[in-house]
This record gives sequence, C-alpha cells and structure tokens, in this order.
Amino acid sequence: MTTVPPPREPSCPVELTLEVIGGKWATVILAHLKEGVHRYGELRRRIPGVSEKMLVQRLRGLESRGLVERRAAGPKGSEVVEYRLTEEGASLVPVLDALYTWGLSRAARTGVRFPPPE
Amino acid sequence: MTTVPPPREPSCPVELTLEVIGGKWATVILAHLKEGVHRYGELRRRIPGVSEKMLVQRLRGLESRGLVERRAAGPKGSEVVEYRLTEEGASLVPVLDALYTWGLSRAARTGVRFPPPE
Repeated sequence: MTTVPPPREPSCPVELTLEVIGGKWATVILAHLKEGVHRYGELRRRIPGVSEKMLVQRLRGLESRGLVERRAAGPKGSEVVEYRLTEEGASLVPVLDALYTWGLSRAARTGVRFPPPE
Repeated sequence: MTTVPPPREPSCPVELTLEVIGGKWATVILAHLKEGVHRYGELRRRIPGVSEKMLVQRLRGLESRGLVERRAAGPKGSEVVEYRLTEEGASLVPVLDALYTWGLSRAARTGVRFPPPE
C-alpha cells in the first residue's frame, strides 16, 4: 500500500510554483502557448510525446488553475477551439524562458537535436 | 490498460530540461542545494512534504543524471553524507531562481505563507 500524505501547504516558493504549473506536460503546453494562441490540433502536433487523453487532461488542469483560457472561435457551426495564456499564465514567461534557455544549452553540450519547427 | 509510449527524444528544449531535472521533488532538492552543501538530514527537515523513500530515490536520480554529488565527509567511523550541486547542476541556477521568484510573487498574490527558515 502506498502512503498518500494529506494535502499540505508548500514549504517553499519553488514547491508552490511547481504545484501551480503542474508537471512536465503542463509546462511544455505553457511553453508553446507563450509563443501565441494555439488551436488544439496545433498543440497535439507540436507535443508528440503526450497522449491525446493526457493532453486534454493537462489543458483542463491548466484552465482550472487559471493559467490557460479556452475559447471557441470562428463562425457558428464550425467553431475551432483555441488556447491562450491568461495574465497569470503569462506571468510565468521568465520561468518558461529559463527552462528553454537551459534546454538549448544542454542540447548543444550533449548533441541532442530537436525536430525542426513546422 | 495504460498505453506507455516508447522512450523518445524530447521534441523541444523545455521538455529536455524537465526530463533532465526530473519532477517536482527533484527540483525542490536542487533549489535547496543551490543555497549550499546540505547533509541528508537537513534536506529531510527542509522538505517535509516528501517521504524518506522518495527523497532517497530523487537524490539517487539526481546523482545518476550528474546534477548532484554525494560525498561522505568527516572522520572515519562517523562520516556524514553531504550533497552538493555539480557544475552541471549549478548551471540550473537561472531556472531555480526563476521558479523561486515566481513562487514568492504568487504567494504574495494569493496569501500563501511559507514556514520560517530554520
């Protein structure tokens, strides 16, 4: 049996940030939305490592924590769903930038190559 | 049944960074070690939200990924185990600083209070 500790306040600012952001895929989603509004299908293509189910769950979590806004846009009958950062989500830009910059330099050190942007 | 995707290269720098760091508790450990060398027991006290088992696992993972160094220090027979950032781990300081700064401002906005430092 696994012991699940009761919900508790974070004990330091870093822990709080990570709880609000919510894990690897949620952070990757935020990093893409930092570049601008994305349709659901665009996110799906740009984050090939995540399953469809998990992407939907992570987007819902980000919405419920007030970091991402979901909007149906376009003419009635053919709406497309778009996601964008809220103001609170956009306040994470310095964090997302730092994660991106470190990943780039790590890739250069270790020879990792990323797929070209679409 | 859960579908587990095969191991794959990260598709963007942010994903790479998060894979190297390795999750919430690993990040919180790095944030404490950024402040200096810590004994195991100090980490245990400063990160009350993590179980002993998980703390040990996360420290081993950080060691195996080259971000943290474990050293037995002190006189023979009464060594103490100390942890510190490696050079690669220390290269994460801008990321850790950004996570800390955002957590502080989020706490101020939302009324979260952290336990006083020891």
